Amino acid sequence: MAVHLLTPTHLHHPSSTPIPRRRAAASATASLTHPLRPHPNPRLRLATATPPRTGPRRGMSAIRSSLIDPDGGALVNLVAPPERRAALRAEAEALPRVRLAPVDVEWAHVLAEGWASPLRGFMREHEYLQCLHFNSLRLPSGGFANMSLPIVLAVDDADKDRIGAAPDVALAGPDGELLAVLRSVEIYPHNKEERIARTWGTTAPGLPYVDEAIAPAGNWLIGGDLEVLQPIKYNDGLDHYRLSPQQLRDEFDKRGADAVFAFQLRNPVHNGHALLMNDTRRRLLEMGFKNPILLLHPLGGFTKADDVPLPVRMEQHSKVLEDGVLDPETTIVSIFPSPMHYAGPTEVQWHAKARINAGANFYIVGRDPAGMGHPTEKRDLYNPDHGKKVLSMAPGLEKLNILPFKVAAYDTVAKKMAFFEPSRSQDFLFISGTKMRTFAKTGENPPDGFMCPGGWKVLVDYYNSLQTEGATAPAAATV
Amino acid sequence: MAVHLLTPTHLHHPSSTPIPRRRAAASATASLTHPLRPHPNPRLRLATATPPRTGPRRGMSAIRSSLIDPDGGALVNLVAPPERRAALRAEAEALPRVRLAPVDVEWAHVLAEGWASPLRGFMREHEYLQCLHFNSLRLPSGGFANMSLPIVLAVDDADKDRIGAAPDVALAGPDGELLAVLRSVEIYPHNKEERIARTWGTTAPGLPYVDEAIAPAGNWLIGGDLEVLQPIKYNDGLDHYRLSPQQLRDEFDKRGADAVFAFQLRNPVHNGHALLMNDTRRRLLEMGFKNPILLLHPLGGFTKADDVPLPVRMEQHSKVLEDGVLDPETTIVSIFPSPMHYAGPTEVQWHAKARINAGANFYIVGRDPAGMGHPTEKRDLYNPDHGKKVLSMAPGLEKLNILPFKVAAYDTVAKKMAFFEPSRSQDFLFISGTKMRTFAKTGENPPDGFMCPGGWKVLVDYYNSLQTEGATAPAAATV
Repeated sequence: MAVHLLTPTHLHHPSSTPIPRRRAAASATASLTHPLRPHPNPRLRLATATPPRTGPRRGMSAIRSSLIDPDGGALVNLVAPPERRAALRAEAEALPRVRLAPVDVEWAHVLAEGWASPLRGFMREHEYLQCLHFNSLRLPSGGFANMSLPIVLAVDDADKDRIGAAPDVALAGPDGELLAVLRSVEIYPHNKEERIARTWGTTAPGLPYVDEAIAPAGNWLIGGDLEVLQPIKYNDGLDHYRLSPQQLRDEFDKRGADAVFAFQLRNPVHNGHALLMNDTRRRLLEMGFKNPILLLHPLGGFTKADDVPLPVRMEQHSKVLEDGVLDPETTIVSIFPSPMHYAGPTEVQWHAKARINAGANFYIVGRDPAGMGHPTEKRDLYNPDHGKKVLSMAPGLEKLNILPFKVAAYDTVAKKMAFFEPSRSQDFLFISGTKMRTFAKTGENPPDGFMCPGGWKVLVDYYNSLQTEGATAPAAATV
Repeated sequence: MAVHLLTPTHLHHPSSTPIPRRRAAASATASLTHPLRPHPNPRLRLATATPPRTGPRRGMSAIRSSLIDPDGGALVNLVAPPERRAALRAEAEALPRVRLAPVDVEWAHVLAEGWASPLRGFMREHEYLQCLHFNSLRLPSGGFANMSLPIVLAVDDADKDRIGAAPDVALAGPDGELLAVLRSVEIYPHNKEERIARTWGTTAPGLPYVDEAIAPAGNWLIGGDLEVLQPIKYNDGLDHYRLSPQQLRDEFDKRGADAVFAFQLRNPVHNGHALLMNDTRRRLLEMGFKNPILLLHPLGGFTKADDVPLPVRMEQHSKVLEDGVLDPETTIVSIFPSPMHYAGPTEVQWHAKARINAGANFYIVGRDPAGMGHPTEKRDLYNPDHGKKVLSMAPGLEKLNILPFKVAAYDTVAKKMAFFEPSRSQDFLFISGTKMRTFAKTGENPPDGFMCPGGWKVLVDYYNSLQTEGATAPAAATV
């Protein structure tokens, strides 16, 4: 699988094909910002002070990856350097130990690589409260970093008793292997009802992340400074796609990107997605950017049971590039290691903020980002417009250029995915994720031009395999 | 009732008694700020640029009331000037009309006088979303004004249909009398579940404000620019206590205040409250302030059914001043017209923010501010420490000095209210609001020194009157 997908090897040794320079710079600082956005502050830094770590790309020596500063000014890295690991492991062996759930490991990964910069570990109470109430953390400068999802670690009464007054604890994975040390810990109450209500705007039963990660968790939260023993790996054949924010920034340097636009997704890529990614690139070129790079950034952590599993999605994405729907020369495919909350306007801020830390200075936002159906009522959980509105006004995201989606749908006249035109709405067909999955499950073909054939086959094969397994095993859970 | 209480007449003609100057300035800009507060920014302005409207107090000509700027830089005033009222009323007569509930009138009052500056009317959606998600509004300067409670007006389907595409609507009171015009209106969905969850951190049934003002309200919200026809009055014999933020600022000017410390309350004042108000004054004098003024600021809008009604509280407060427990010379008693949400850490921000607009630059915060018992579980709804923690970190409140309570309790040895000393905790008795009300209801006397006798008698008489009425009528609702 995925032999044709961009691999880190490919990523780190880009071909020497000249970067297309279709237009001269018209206005390198023009903004694509949403009209709602009160304080656009687009930045294009063409600094020459610090050369990229691996040297500039031929012909692009004046352009740097540092298109956008990490939150807090420096990218957090909580992975112990190799020379420290033996001593750290020895230290961890002697500490009270907390066993992590799989989702906790994903968050430790997120923290360790600096996606949540400037956060340096699981939240202490003052960070948790700022996150719940303000969706942001106050910086020493007086400004704010966006931080909308609580990144917290729950422990139960027995853990709390065992830790007692110990200042530091060791964190072990689900199988008991030592992963990290959490220092200068603070233990405070885990009011689940309040956390859920303030994060999701509902306490209705059936929220996937709540069922997976909050309901079974302990009634205390433990915050502290994290240090992981070594880079976190999943050994699922996909670790080479899990580039850290620093690795992504380095790659943007190597490619000589002068704009990076991130596309967050947790679904297969159809031609409507491709249309808007390609259209975004076109608009950036028109604005005068010479080498806009697309970060196609599927979420790789916990997803709900009926989402398409990560390995299938990665294979589907590889076919989309193979089939030429997206251009491999100007696209980087990588996995975003965060778990999914399905918390709509609250979560989309996290999705955008993390991409700032990964070096993206443009973020594409669509209808109902991170949304889902209400778990107990027949309606969307969130107003589909709130995601992009909240994102456009969020504290700490001023430096990011928000690119709202135009709505794409299937044009039954042109027989392809196209931007919706209200004046001939009867010609357009909206195919939701649920409808797409139903097509694939039932073996029915979607309309021609909805998705490239190679990508569609991956989905059909996956659902076929589920039905075969169905005779002997329950439906596959997400990874 | 209340003949001895400070009246506006008294307020506007303070005695010429010299203001005590007990200490020379030690450090006029020293901060009493809570250690948690990340960016204290105490301000003491001794500006001379703009003389107060009514002229400086004798001997204090260099000191101004403008100890703290209103949010947004200028105090909002949405009351039509007298010369405009006839024309405005004629205009309003011709507009589609929305009938307000009593709580809506209280909010119109709050908005009209600028307590919610820089808000100029019921929230439009972009303000509502910022309030729900960030507890703050972005200012044109790029900074933030705190705004934690949604100040919104709900309309039902019939209202919405009647308004249609009209840009402006008239607002009428519960009895149909015209009150205001709302201009350039925007109507958007009222997702009650989400509003409740994000405001209270729970959706449990039985929240008083939800039952009173949200559950019966329509499924749409209407925002716009408010203009009220004339100052809003209640004709309950207490209007003279309802000083606007501008009137309060003028009064602080007249008194030559160099610090104003606000005390929000919705309960009778006992000697523990008085202890900490007097102690705060002592601390401010020690810091070098020469004339700190206490704003004793009972909340006058909607309160829950078992709270003590406003007229009874006002009478009780007057006895506290009469009995000399608080010093009338350095205390201003006024009514804060806001309704009560009982939304804990979210609401305490509103309570503090509104007092900035009223000119207070110090704010006293206690245990579990704006808190109550969980409506369906046997616990406090909020962690009692969260209020002061959230307040100390809230965006837009940096300019306000937060003064956390020391805990006062009844010292059974000294036979008076005193600051709690953990080393002899067995000597202290905590008397909650509920316990105090139970004492008063059952005719049992609280311990000597808990409350001044005159104040206590007001409560006993009130509960006696309820029991007398009880034979023929249900218990009195709050006012």
